[in-house]
Amino acid sequence: MASPKLVYFDIDGARGEAARLAMVIGGVPFEDDRVKFADWEGRKPGTPFGALPVLELDGQTVAQSNGINRYVGKLAGLYPSDAWQAALCDEAMDAVEEIATKLWSTMSLPAAEKKAQRESLAAGPLSYSLDRLQRRLVAHGGQYFSDGRLTVADLKVFVWIRHLRSGQLDHVPVDLPDRVAPRLVEHHDRVKAHPAVKAYYAERKVAL
Amino acid sequence: MASPKLVYFDIDGARGEAARLAMVIGGVPFEDDRVKFADWEGRKPGTPFGALPVLELDGQTVAQSNGINRYVGKLAGLYPSDAWQAALCDEAMDAVEEIATKLWSTMSLPAAEKKAQRESLAAGPLSYSLDRLQRRLVAHGGQYFSDGRLTVADLKVFVWIRHLRSGQLDHVPVDLPDRVAPRLVEHHDRVKAHPAVKAYYAERKVAL
Repeated sequence: MASPKLVYFDIDGARGEAARLAMVIGGVPFEDDRVKFADWEGRKPGTPFGALPVLELDGQTVAQSNGINRYVGKLAGLYPSDAWQAALCDEAMDAVEEIATKLWSTMSLPAAEKKAQRESLAAGPLSYSLDRLQRRLVAHGGQYFSDGRLTVADLKVFVWIRHLRSGQLDHVPVDLPDRVAPRLVEHHDRVKAHPAVKAYYAERKVAL
Repeated sequence: MASPKLVYFDIDGARGEAARLAMVIGGVPFEDDRVKFADWEGRKPGTPFGALPVLELDGQTVAQSNGINRYVGKLAGLYPSDAWQAALCDEAMDAVEEIATKLWSTMSLPAAEKKAQRESLAAGPLSYSLDRLQRRLVAHGGQYFSDGRLTVADLKVFVWIRHLRSGQLDHVPVDLPDRVAPRLVEHHDRVKAHPAVKAYYAERKVAL
């Protein structure tokens, strides 16, 4: 089988990162096509929905980040084969996508409006979402979101918590996850300590 | 195995409807727990993310509509077993969820703002999304979104096109799908003509 090509922006986070991590952890050879922001307008019309990530394989393309996570998760052995556990894995990924989309949709707002919306989101829906995700983690044993082991859901949540704590999201308190959902921060640290994750970011020269 | 219980609002559309249709078509016995809007505030805290649908089975609960669609799709034989076809199925479902969320998020806005935002969405992102979904359908043969047969993706798109053409979304032209994505309207009619779908809505006394 040919190797898949993951097309995503040249950043070490956001919607394409969990798929990269899954293939790295699972030892799945893939082409990491990192799109520069300057090149995006030219490539955008060729994507299925004008957005990244997309995954290419044998001349075919598929879009939407969580579907890609599932596909590469199956290749990497990081997606549950049990249907119920798969649904729990999907649930956590969609919960992250839901709240992250709300936050990211403020990106291009005028400064004052961005500040107001982000502060409102942080105090309301984002805090709620973190609390609820934490409850789900705890309800399923506290270590992983489904299947009693590392799956793509854990990678998705890890990337999200890392983003929230990075200070890159202006007007969202960097200590919000630590205050609202300390078990998610422990979970983040658990994924971060995975040998393949550590080795990958060391090679990428990305501080965790 | 116990029968699953689908908990969703007492409406014949939106986020819970594709799962109902999948179980009806696949002959999967299920409890259809239809929540009245008046009862929602009381039930909301007991759901994983303060939202419906949720699916309950053997005392366990799972949330997020497309994950539920996948789970019941597997029970109903309406989800691809091939991983790539599954990713295409997921892609269409997430594409609908993405644009529907944008539209539905205007629901509680003040009248003037709702009108402005919906008109802007209809002319821009919604038209774009319909065009792109149509292209994906055509690229995969024009009949179904994946696997060369009816899957939960087709049910999700069907419910969405039906909603757009229903006139229930103020400020969104009811003829938008017909103008922008006639192949999606043909696809809608194809799903609507499915004997189990016809029989179900006849029994529900819902006009299609």
